[in-house]
Amino acid sequence: MSQLFTKTLREAPKDEVSVNAQLLIRGGFIKKLSAGVYSFLPLGLIVLRKIENIVREEMNNLGGQEILMPVLHPREIWEEAGRWETADYLYKLKDRQGSEFALGATHEEVITDIARKYINSYRDLPLLVYQIQTKFRDELRAKSGLLRGREFSMKDLYSFHEDEEDRKKYYNTIENSYLKILKKCGFKDIIVAEASGGSFSKEYSHEFQIPTIAGEDLIIFCKSCGFAQNKEICDLRQEGVCPNCEKELKEFKTIEVGNIFALGANYSKPMSLSFLDRSGMTKPVIMGCYGMGPSRLMGAAIEVHHDHRGIIWPEEITPFGVVVIQIESKNEAINEKIKKTAEKVYKKLQEKGVAVLYDERENKGAGEKFMEADLIGIPWRVVVSERTVAENKIEIKNRNEKEGALISESKLLEKIL
Amino acid sequence: MSQLFTKTLREAPKDEVSVNAQLLIRGGFIKKLSAGVYSFLPLGLIVLRKIENIVREEMNNLGGQEILMPVLHPREIWEEAGRWETADYLYKLKDRQGSEFALGATHEEVITDIARKYINSYRDLPLLVYQIQTKFRDELRAKSGLLRGREFSMKDLYSFHEDEEDRKKYYNTIENSYLKILKKCGFKDIIVAEASGGSFSKEYSHEFQIPTIAGEDLIIFCKSCGFAQNKEICDLRQEGVCPNCEKELKEFKTIEVGNIFALGANYSKPMSLSFLDRSGMTKPVIMGCYGMGPSRLMGAAIEVHHDHRGIIWPEEITPFGVVVIQIESKNEAINEKIKKTAEKVYKKLQEKGVAVLYDERENKGAGEKFMEADLIGIPWRVVVSERTVAENKIEIKNRNEKEGALISESKLLEKIL
Repeated sequence: MSQLFTKTLREAPKDEVSVNAQLLIRGGFIKKLSAGVYSFLPLGLIVLRKIENIVREEMNNLGGQEILMPVLHPREIWEEAGRWETADYLYKLKDRQGSEFALGATHEEVITDIARKYINSYRDLPLLVYQIQTKFRDELRAKSGLLRGREFSMKDLYSFHEDEEDRKKYYNTIENSYLKILKKCGFKDIIVAEASGGSFSKEYSHEFQIPTIAGEDLIIFCKSCGFAQNKEICDLRQEGVCPNCEKELKEFKTIEVGNIFALGANYSKPMSLSFLDRSGMTKPVIMGCYGMGPSRLMGAAIEVHHDHRGIIWPEEITPFGVVVIQIESKNEAINEKIKKTAEKVYKKLQEKGVAVLYDERENKGAGEKFMEADLIGIPWRVVVSERTVAENKIEIKNRNEKEGALISESKLLEKIL
Repeated sequence: MSQLFTKTLREAPKDEVSVNAQLLIRGGFIKKLSAGVYSFLPLGLIVLRKIENIVREEMNNLGGQEILMPVLHPREIWEEAGRWETADYLYKLKDRQGSEFALGATHEEVITDIARKYINSYRDLPLLVYQIQTKFRDELRAKSGLLRGREFSMKDLYSFHEDEEDRKKYYNTIENSYLKILKKCGFKDIIVAEASGGSFSKEYSHEFQIPTIAGEDLIIFCKSCGFAQNKEICDLRQEGVCPNCEKELKEFKTIEVGNIFALGANYSKPMSLSFLDRSGMTKPVIMGCYGMGPSRLMGAAIEVHHDHRGIIWPEEITPFGVVVIQIESKNEAINEKIKKTAEKVYKKLQEKGVAVLYDERENKGAGEKFMEADLIGIPWRVVVSERTVAENKIEIKNRNEKEGALISESKLLEKIL
C-alpha cells in the first residue's frame, strides 16, 4: 500500500453528485478529467479489466469472435446507413485536410462494412462478432459518474443471420449469457424489460435493468408474472395493472446495463450486406446487436453495493480479495513480531493465488487504516496487532460484518476461500 | 478454420503500398476503414494482444503501475502546458455545448494532472506509471499501414523523480526493458540512436530503431563502436566518419519502434507538479517519458519477417504456433483415417497448450491450403494426407524451410516445442 501511487481522499469532490463517482474518486479508483471523462487509476483498472474479462469469457462461450474496431469513423460510412445527420450525440471533427469523422458511439456501420467483405453465402451464417472498446457520446448532462460517461468502455456484440427466425433463436442464449455476466458481477436483482426498438424498428428491444435509486430509467414491473417495460413505451391507460396477469405493476428506478436490439436489414440493406441463400437467391443479411458497458457495470455495482463507510465490492470484481493490515506497536520487540506475522500471512495468501493488498505503512493509526480499507471496499480484512499477536491469533472481518473475530493463522484460508 | 469469419484475399488492395498492410489485409488480420485507421480482425487482435502483453509484462517488471487515461482531452489542460496552439497533429473537436477537446496524441498533460493530485513529498518518488491505450495523430500522409497510423495502439510510460540524476539512473533499466521486449517480439537488429529532444529540450532523446528498407527514418550508425544518431541531428560536416572512433559510418533506413525522452520540468513547472524535498524545499518534479507502439511493432515485425509468399511470424507473437492441415482423399475409408489423425493431432497439441489452427475445410485443395497457411505465416505446418497416413506418419514443415519431413506422430511435440 505504501507503493500504490494513489491515496484515498477524505472529501468527495463537490462537482460529483453520484455515489459511484464520489466513492471511486475518494478511493483512488478513478480521476475525473472532465465531465463524463475519467482516468482509471491502478485499483480502478483492475476492477474494469475483471469485469471486461467476465464479459469476454461469456462472449467466447457463445462462440463470439473478438475483434477491435476503430474510434475514427469517416463521415461516408455513417452516410451510407443514413445516420450522419440524425445522430445528435455524435462527436464530429474535421482533420487538417478537411475530411470529416465521427467518434464511434456505436459500430453498426463499421461492422457491416467488415461483414460485407467476408459474408457471401448462407454457409458463412450465423456469425457472432464482438469487441470490447472505448466509445464516445456527446451527452448533454454527464453527472452520474461511470453510469453515463462521454467516454466509456463498451462491449458490443453483433450477430448475422439468414432470417429473423434464426436471429430469434439466439435471443435466449444471449439473454442467459447476459444474466450470467450480471450475476457474476454481483447483481442479484435484474429486470429484463421491453423497450423501444429505436427509430428503425417496430419490434421491442430488451433492456437489462438493475433497480436502484441512482437509476435514470423508470421500469414498470410485475412481480407476479415478470412482465416489465420501460415506462417510455408502456401504455399509461393501464394505470398500474399488468396487461398479462392483471396484478399490480410496480415502478422502479433502474440503471440500464445491457440491451438487445433487432436490427433486421436496417444496416445490411443500405450498405449492401447480402448473401446467397440455399436456393441461390441474394438476400440481405439479418442482424442483431447486443450492448453491455463494463465501465457502467462498475458504477452500477457501487450504487448497489456500498454503505456510509464506502464501497463493498462483490467477490468476483474486487481489486483485491483480502487486505492485510499491520498495526504498529510502540514496543519494538512486539512490533517486529507484528511485522513478521503480517508479512507471513501476506505471502501465504499470495502463494495460494489470493490477490492481497498489504497495508504495511508506518506512522498510520489503526483508525485511519480501517477507514481506508472500508472506503476501498476489500471483502476481507485481516488485522495483525499487539492484541492479536499476544493471543497468537489474527483478526478477520468481512466488509459486511460489524465485528471481527480472532482466529488462528491456520484457519484463515478455510475462512476466506 | 471453417469457423473463422475472415478469409484470405488473393489480391492486395491497390491503395495500400506498404508490405505490412498488404500482407495483413490479404491474410485477414486487419481491415482498413480509412487511411491510417484499421480494424483488428480475430487473427490480428491475437497478435496485437500478444505484443501488448509482452510490453505489459516488462513494464510491470520495472515496477510500473498500469492505468488507463482518456482519449478526450479538454482544451484547458493542453493550454496549461502551452501546447494547444503548437501541436498541429492534434485532432480537435467541439462538443454540442461548444467546449473544445483534443484527441489524445500523447498524455503528458493528463498524467501530470493526475500526478499533482498524488505526489506531495520526496517519499512519493520515484514513480513509474504507464498505460497501453489508443492514440490519435492527424498525420498528413498515412501510407505505411500499421507503421504510421492515424489511430494506433501505444504504450506510454511516465517516470517522476526528485532530480535529473535520479531520472538518469532509470535510463539503463528502461533501455534494457525495451531491448528485451524487442527481442521477444523477434527483432534481432536494434539500433539505439540519439535524436532531437524536441522543441523543449537541449538534451538528446533516444530512439529504438529497426533497420529495414520500409523505414521512414534515416540513421547514421557505426558498427565499430555502436555510435548512432538520427540523420536529422547529425553533423553533416563529419561526412561519414564516426566522431567517437573515426571508423566509417553507415546509413540505414529504419522504423522507430520506441523512444525515451527527458521531459525535465517542462510539464511539471507550468502545471504546478511539485514536491517537498528532504530539506523541506518545494521543487518541481522531474519527468521522463517512454513510448512504444504495439501496433507499429506488429507492422515492423512483418516488414522484417516476410517472403514473397507471405508473413513469417516470430514464435512469441504468432497468432497460432501450428497449423494442422488435412488434405482430403477421394477414397472414403482413407479420408476417414486422415480426418481422425488430423483431429487427434489437433487435440493433442491443444492439450499441451499449443495454439493450433485446424484447417479442416472440405472442398479445398492442398495447393490452396498451403498458400493460405504461408500467407498467414504460422511457424509450423503439419499436414495429414493420403501419403502421410499410408506411411503412418505426419508431415511437418517450418515456415522458413522449403521441404517438409515425414515424422511419426509421437515425435511431433519434441520437434516443435
